Amino acid sequence: MPDFAIIGAGAMGSAVAKRLIDHGATVLTNLEGRSELTIARAKAAGMAPVGREELAKAELILSIVPPAEAIGVAEFVADISSGLSAPAPFLDLNAIAPKTMQTLAARFGGSAVEVLDGAIIGGPPVAGKSGPTLYVSGDGAARSRLLEDYGLRVRRLDGRLGAASALKMCYAGINKGFVGLGAAMLLAASRSGAAESLKAELAESLPDLDRKLSKSIPDMYPKAYRWVAEMQEIADFLGEDDPGATIFRGMAGVFSRLADDVEDGRVLVRQLDEILGSESAGAMVMP
Amino acid sequence: MPDFAIIGAGAMGSAVAKRLIDHGATVLTNLEGRSELTIARAKAAGMAPVGREELAKAELILSIVPPAEAIGVAEFVADISSGLSAPAPFLDLNAIAPKTMQTLAARFGGSAVEVLDGAIIGGPPVAGKSGPTLYVSGDGAARSRLLEDYGLRVRRLDGRLGAASALKMCYAGINKGFVGLGAAMLLAASRSGAAESLKAELAESLPDLDRKLSKSIPDMYPKAYRWVAEMQEIADFLGEDDPGATIFRGMAGVFSRLADDVEDGRVLVRQLDEILGSESAGAMVMP
Repeated sequence: MPDFAIIGAGAMGSAVAKRLIDHGATVLTNLEGRSELTIARAKAAGMAPVGREELAKAELILSIVPPAEAIGVAEFVADISSGLSAPAPFLDLNAIAPKTMQTLAARFGGSAVEVLDGAIIGGPPVAGKSGPTLYVSGDGAARSRLLEDYGLRVRRLDGRLGAASALKMCYAGINKGFVGLGAAMLLAASRSGAAESLKAELAESLPDLDRKLSKSIPDMYPKAYRWVAEMQEIADFLGEDDPGATIFRGMAGVFSRLADDVEDGRVLVRQLDEILGSESAGAMVMP
Repeated sequence: MPDFAIIGAGAMGSAVAKRLIDHGATVLTNLEGRSELTIARAKAAGMAPVGREELAKAELILSIVPPAEAIGVAEFVADISSGLSAPAPFLDLNAIAPKTMQTLAARFGGSAVEVLDGAIIGGPPVAGKSGPTLYVSGDGAARSRLLEDYGLRVRRLDGRLGAASALKMCYAGINKGFVGLGAAMLLAASRSGAAESLKAELAESLPDLDRKLSKSIPDMYPKAYRWVAEMQEIADFLGEDDPGATIFRGMAGVFSRLADDVEDGRVLVRQLDEILGSESAGAMVMP
């Protein structure tokens, strides 16, 4: 039975751990200084708490953290792996731009650690469903096969290190970007008295887009704060020369405003729920 | 049989005219100084060319022109209507922001002309289909009923003058904005080697959005140049205080780049077509 190490026991990290554990693996994590919520979630998933240095004993180390923490995690792993004769490969699964991924890989310069670029597309694993999909690039030796053997859906990409990150940026740009676009326009319709006719016209002439917004906008509220950094990362990925970068700087602003509203007052949330006919207006959702 | 006047015999204006004519109306237009293409299109639709002043004799005057020309058309109609004891109502059907609509209405200050705010949602009328929908606000006296009587689908909005323009801005922001978002991300995927995996993942996990992009991106190429101004108008509509305005300034940049490419080289068009598996790469489409 292999040991995996997962750094990050958030909603995604702990659910990925649970999938591996349910298939017979052991998943190590370090919980020093973590919140009570994180500790409870890690234990519920069956993760094995160990000391920081012991994470290096796993056969594969996964990083599943918010984008802003990805490089720090890599530095930590480079540190605990240094001096080991056969350190475990390191798989970054975070929503970071390919250039950030290159910077991250450079933190392992001179070490024997094999660095893999990964991206998770889809929500956290749920019992009975096969998703999400883990895309992995830079994995010539198929180190990620171990994840497949223990219940995860993995697709290896031919491209060089960074291809999985690029895919994630593009996918999130379309998927989450559309949610930001929809939220911005529904709020504008609400304040200009066009909400009702807009919703009716969308339902009639763009039913697919309407369904997507009706489901995904309420799902977004508790995640808006995380999506701010993701949108900025997509803007960086597109680069200054691409006018698309401006779109995502605007998206970051839209999600930032929504994140503030979720924390304080839920005025915009109520406006959106009213248009969407959603029930979540009164409910507080755990971030 | 009523006479309508339509200012603007573009693809939309001439198709709206044809629908009215097919239902028995006469549609006046002025073709002085217009291109051969426009003249041919107006004649094919059965529009009746008349002198500029004669347009004022119609029972309802419609403006269907690019957003940048909307105010100029209003000034012209105010001019030819001045001095008439019972001038025809004027219906602006252009994709302009509510504030632009207010400015436009102010051009009729002191005159007896009734100004109506309209917006067309959907493509040009086609025989056998009931769309598009004409939304009209500020129409207390139901002047737009005449259009309904002659084969067009009309919905009157309760809101004040500007509500139809607001609806159009919001709808176009979602519909065309999504096309711009998708094009920007597909191009980014293409240059970072993630195009194939992105397309496969979209088809699998977001089939509705994938279908929309596959159809709407190729349809957009010949219209990209017009969408630049529409995106800027949406940014103005949202206003400086709304981070969503930044999204649409970026969209204007994306469509501007695509419009240049359509005119010169079609390099980006070919990249998009390759991802989408579309056939239009070699075909030149009439703008």
